[in-house]
Amino acid sequence: MNQLKNDTFLRALMRQPTEYTPVWMMRQAGRYLPEYRESRKTAGSFMDLCKSAQFATDVTLQPLDRYPEIDAAILFSDILTIPDAMGLGLSFEAGEGPRFAKTLQEEADIKQLTVPDMASLQYVFNAVSSIRKALNGRVPLIGFSGSPWTLATYMVEGKGGTDFLTTKKMAYARPDLLHHILETTAQTVIQYLNAQIAAGAQAVMIFDSWGGALSHNAYTEFSLNYMQKIVAGLTKTSEGRIVPSIVFTKGGALWLEAQAEIGADALGLDWTVDIGSARKRVGNKVALQGNMDPAILLSTPEAIEKEVAHILASYGNGNGHVFNLGHGITQWTPPENAAAMLEAVRNLSKPYHV
Amino acid sequence: MNQLKNDTFLRALMRQPTEYTPVWMMRQAGRYLPEYRESRKTAGSFMDLCKSAQFATDVTLQPLDRYPEIDAAILFSDILTIPDAMGLGLSFEAGEGPRFAKTLQEEADIKQLTVPDMASLQYVFNAVSSIRKALNGRVPLIGFSGSPWTLATYMVEGKGGTDFLTTKKMAYARPDLLHHILETTAQTVIQYLNAQIAAGAQAVMIFDSWGGALSHNAYTEFSLNYMQKIVAGLTKTSEGRIVPSIVFTKGGALWLEAQAEIGADALGLDWTVDIGSARKRVGNKVALQGNMDPAILLSTPEAIEKEVAHILASYGNGNGHVFNLGHGITQWTPPENAAAMLEAVRNLSKPYHV
Repeated sequence: MNQLKNDTFLRALMRQPTEYTPVWMMRQAGRYLPEYRESRKTAGSFMDLCKSAQFATDVTLQPLDRYPEIDAAILFSDILTIPDAMGLGLSFEAGEGPRFAKTLQEEADIKQLTVPDMASLQYVFNAVSSIRKALNGRVPLIGFSGSPWTLATYMVEGKGGTDFLTTKKMAYARPDLLHHILETTAQTVIQYLNAQIAAGAQAVMIFDSWGGALSHNAYTEFSLNYMQKIVAGLTKTSEGRIVPSIVFTKGGALWLEAQAEIGADALGLDWTVDIGSARKRVGNKVALQGNMDPAILLSTPEAIEKEVAHILASYGNGNGHVFNLGHGITQWTPPENAAAMLEAVRNLSKPYHV
Repeated sequence: MNQLKNDTFLRALMRQPTEYTPVWMMRQAGRYLPEYRESRKTAGSFMDLCKSAQFATDVTLQPLDRYPEIDAAILFSDILTIPDAMGLGLSFEAGEGPRFAKTLQEEADIKQLTVPDMASLQYVFNAVSSIRKALNGRVPLIGFSGSPWTLATYMVEGKGGTDFLTTKKMAYARPDLLHHILETTAQTVIQYLNAQIAAGAQAVMIFDSWGGALSHNAYTEFSLNYMQKIVAGLTKTSEGRIVPSIVFTKGGALWLEAQAEIGADALGLDWTVDIGSARKRVGNKVALQGNMDPAILLSTPEAIEKEVAHILASYGNGNGHVFNLGHGITQWTPPENAAAMLEAVRNLSKPYHV
C-alpha cells in the first residue's frame, strides 16, 4: 500500500519524537463546513450517506483539503452502525437524534442478541478502503467504534439520552442481562475494528460517549472492562503493524489511572481536565489526545490562540500529545476559527519538540 | 426559636461526632411521592406553587412524615427564583423545562442587570419561616440557591441546556459581560441566602448544577470564585450561629481539592467519584455529602442495600459524611425503594460511628 507522507499522528500515539504536536478534530467532516452542507444536499437519509463509500470518501477528505495542518483523517460513519446491523432498526428523525424501532429491554429479546455477520457492515469496510485509496498516503486513517456500554445505552433506551435510567436499572437489577448485551457487543466491536484494520485503518478509536454517566465501580464493570477486551482483541494491519488504539470516555477524566492500564496506546480527554495534571496521573503509560472545549471555537481567533497556547504549555515539553477538541466540533463553528486553532497548534507547538 | 430534636445532620456537616450517618435526599419533596402528586392537583403553575408558603410547607414535610430516617428538610423552591426576580420572565412549559421570556445576550441588556429588591423574593422567605415553624425542631431546615454560573447559563441561554454554547461564547469572547452577570448574581445570592438564614434556614446549599460543563480553568474563573464570594458573605443565624454551607458542583469531582479551599463546610458529590478517594483528596478540610446514583433506586431493595453498604464502607470510619443521592431523586422511584435506602443508611452506618 501507499507510503505515508505524514505519520506525525501515529508517532505521537506511540509516544515517539515528532517535530510538532499533531492535530485533528473530532467530527472534522461535518456541518460547520459549507462544502459538507453542499454534499449533504444529495438526497438520502443520514444512514444512506454513511452507506455510500463515495460520499464517505468525499466528505472525509474535505477538511484535509481545506486545512493543510490536519494530521489525521477519520472514517466518516456513525457509532450506531453496529446496533443497526444487529437488527434494531435505526433511523434519524429530523432534529430528534437517533431512534431504534426495537429496544433491548425484555429478557427474551436480549437473549436472542448475537454477533451480526460482518457482511451486513461491509459498506463500512468499503468506505475505509475507498478513503484509504483516496488519501494516497497524505495522513493516516482512523477507524472507530462506539464502546459496548455506549452502544448498549442506545439499544436499551431505544434512543439517545443523558440519564439512561432503563439501562442503569438493568445494570443493578439484572446485571446478567446487561452483561450479555455488553459481551455480545464487545465481540462484535472486535470483529468490526479488525475488519476496518484489514480494509486499511491505521489507528482505531473507541468512543465511550456515555461512560461518564456511571459510578466509579459501575464504570469499571460495565464499560472499561469491555474496552479492555476489545483492545486485547485487535489484530495487526495488513502491513503487519500493531494498530495504535485510542480510548475516549467523555466525562471520564476521574478514572484516567484505570484507563491507562487497559493496553490502549492513547486516551482521549474532554476539556474538563487540565491536560498537564492528566499527564502527571498517567505517566508514560499512554499518549493523550485533547482537549480544547469546542465551544471556544465560537469565540475569537485571539481567544482560541490563547487557549491553544495554554493547553500546549500545560502538556509541556516532549512527546505523546495529539491535539484535538474535547468533543466533536459544533455545527456553528466559523470555519476560519477552526483554521485559527489548527494554525496555532502547528506554530506554537514546535518549541515543545526541540 | 424551637430547640432542635435531631441535629445529627448539622453535626455531620461540622465533622463532629454522630451516632450514625445522617441522610436526606435531594428533591425529596417530589413527584415520586403519591402525596406530592395529590398536593400538585391544586391548580396553578409550578411557580405559583413555589410562591405559596402553605404548599411549600405541606410538601416539604411530606417525606419527613413518610420516612422517619430523614435527618434534614430542604426548602421547597426552585433555583430559578433569582432570574425570575431579575425580571427575565420565568415560565415552565409542560414537558419542556424552564423558559425565560428575556435572555441576557446583548451588551445593553446585560449592563442594565442589577441586584433585585429582596422584597420580590419575600415569598421564599415566608416559606422558610412557615416551614421552620411547622418543623417544630424535628430536623434542621436547609435553604438553598443556584450558583452564579448555573443561574447565568439559564439567563443567557433563556432555557435549560447541556452545552451552553452561547454562555461559553460570551465567556471567551466577552468575559467582561459574563463577569458582570456573575458578579451581580453573586451579590444577589448573598442577600438571598442571608435572608433565608434570617427567616430560619439552619444550613445552606449552593447548587452548581452546570459547573461540570466547564474546563478546569474556566470553572475556577466563572464558577468557583463566585461561590467562594458567596460563602464568605454568609451571616450568622438569628441564634448567632454560623450556618454550615454545602457547595455542590455536579460533574465537578475533578476539582474537589480546589472546592475544599473556598470556606464551605461540606462538598456535595455526584456518584461518579468514589467517596473514599474523595475523602482522601480533601482530608479534614470539609465534610462530604453523597453520593448514590439515583438510578439505583429504580432497581431492587437488595441492590440498593448493597450500594449503601459499599458507599458507607468506602467513606469508612468517623465523622463528616452526610449520606445523599448524587442528584435529585427521580420521579419514577418506587417510594418503598427510597425507604430501603434510608433504612439501610441508618442501620448499616452505626458501626462506623463507634
